[in-house]
Amino acid sequence: MTELKNKIRIGVIGGAKPDAESLRIAFKIGQIIARKGAILVCGGLSGVMESASRGAKEEGGLTVGILPGNSPKDSNRYIDIAIATGLGYTRNSLVVMNADVIIAVDGQYGTLSEIAYGCVHRKKVIGIKTWDIEGVIKAESAEEAVDLALKDYYPLIR
Amino acid sequence: MTELKNKIRIGVIGGAKPDAESLRIAFKIGQIIARKGAILVCGGLSGVMESASRGAKEEGGLTVGILPGNSPKDSNRYIDIAIATGLGYTRNSLVVMNADVIIAVDGQYGTLSEIAYGCVHRKKVIGIKTWDIEGVIKAESAEEAVDLALKDYYPLIR
Amino acid sequence: MTELKNKIRIGVIGGAKPDAESLRIAFKIGQIIARKGAILVCGGLSGVMESASRGAKEEGGLTVGILPGNSPKDSNRYIDIAIATGLGYTRNSLVVMNADVIIAVDGQYGTLSEIAYGCVHRKKVIGIKTWDIEGVIKAESAEEAVDLALKDYYPLIR
Amino acid sequence: MTELKNKIRIGVIGGAKPDAESLRIAFKIGQIIARKGAILVCGGLSGVMESASRGAKEEGGLTVGILPGNSPKDSNRYIDIAIATGLGYTRNSLVVMNADVIIAVDGQYGTLSEIAYGCVHRKKVIGIKTWDIEGVIKAESAEEAVDLALKDYYPLIR
Repeated sequence: MTELKNKIRIGVIGGAKPDAESLRIAFKIGQIIARKGAILVCGGLSGVMESASRGAKEEGGLTVGILPGNSPKDSNRYIDIAIATGLGYTRNSLVVMNADVIIAVDGQYGTLSEIAYGCVHRKKVIGIKTWDIEGVIKAESAEEAVDLALKDYYPLIR
Repeated sequence: MTELKNKIRIGVIGGAKPDAESLRIAFKIGQIIARKGAILVCGGLSGVMESASRGAKEEGGLTVGILPGNSPKDSNRYIDIAIATGLGYTRNSLVVMNADVIIAVDGQYGTLSEIAYGCVHRKKVIGIKTWDIEGVIKAESAEEAVDLALKDYYPLIR
Repeated sequence: MTELKNKIRIGVIGGAKPDAESLRIAFKIGQIIARKGAILVCGGLSGVMESASRGAKEEGGLTVGILPGNSPKDSNRYIDIAIATGLGYTRNSLVVMNADVIIAVDGQYGTLSEIAYGCVHRKKVIGIKTWDIEGVIKAESAEEAVDLALKDYYPLIR
Repeated sequence: MTELKNKIRIGVIGGAKPDAESLRIAFKIGQIIARKGAILVCGGLSGVMESASRGAKEEGGLTVGILPGNSPKDSNRYIDIAIATGLGYTRNSLVVMNADVIIAVDGQYGTLSEIAYGCVHRKKVIGIKTWDIEGVIKAESAEEAVDLALKDYYPLIR
């Protein structure tokens, strides 16, 4: 198994146009994910996705963006591996499929569809300032969110 | 334009294993949809989908089922036009995309993903005994649900 | 099982901008499919797809169009049941998945992808004036193409 | 733009059960891709895909596998970034979409669908011991195949 394949992947989902605090939280989540050695998976576009990706890159992390469009070029600039799907919003299901655990920050209906898919695929979903859905574990801060996301993996961190 | 293409399509979404009352409501919704001359679109499988389809067929309606699997043969027996997608749960987005308006009855996380996609695609979503999501219009009975679904189309019923 | 579900579905694939003879052949194929009581499945757009659909509708047949875009409204006007997928060209695989047997007329690379998918899914593929691919059965006329398509189903015509 | 996003991606497509020579060629192609600093994109499974991935990893390259199934765990062991799609064979279109240029080695109908999609998406497609399709550029060796793939990018190698 390659070293990268062995790493935990944390999906960060959330609004394309969130408020300033959500952007700050997303940025911090990205930073912590990178410091913990996990891979960040997201939808590859703006808002929470971009802010989390930027945070991860500032800490030397690896970022994967699963895009709605046909071209990998269309991701935000903090994505290392952009995956074009050509599926439009239907790609939301694939974002979740490619994460071991999910953190939702803010978000509108697209994020709600991803939270729902997270639960459909029986992934752990952490929520911060987002939809209040049964089964989603609430976090109050970026630190707590990543801690909750990773806690089942310690000390087995891959 | 063909006569069928011109008809309103109502998407009925909901749980694969609902309680008896939800099944009864779904059946009635299917009946009323058929009587109104609309086409029923659903996920083509069991539970609410099957019950609504059966209701529509008993009243001589037309039913379309958009399936997760590779074979059109896998739909429930009340589906006229089964569409295989091979997309698994990711097909939920397509169910919604193919309806003018959506009625949700009961339902778990799969239904929640469809409600969310309904809102993403800016369709009207009516809910009965289902997730309480901002933007979803509540109905108390099968009759009310279909009335709410169709009311923007009167007297222009296509 | 509903009466419609029981019918054989013939997929007609081919170019969006074919020459006049291919359009004539496609039209005739559509007519014969309808006369035989089979359902026509196609990509729902222009060229061979539209010509075959028009042929089928002139004979009172039923037509299904599986579209690349997000809206069922975008089909050609001879489609009864338009299915939006939002998958772009990736929907080619779904066109084939929803046919019992396929007839290719003319066509460019998109048609080639559908011929390939027909063979991947182990469907019988008939070709007329199209790509010369091993495993594709050649036909010289519309009549022969539909005969070859349906011959395994006689006298069991569903 | 991240350093990784800037790299050229070469898609290697081909049979899941090729003969020994095709495996050897695929392995070599993977090695050369890695040495040239390009990213290898493939379907993530066995045969040509696995052999090319192994070659790339032996030279310290980066490999992306776009999988038909629901779990990133199902890739071959030489894949760094496995992307689950849950699309089945329909994912073939996505493999091609995520490469700047494509090399086909050996292959059955699945590979033919990818060659066709390569041409649909107007990518350069190099073929070696594979389907003889108009528009595909023939190569005789692994070296020549990668040279042909990369030549438009020199000296602009990203």
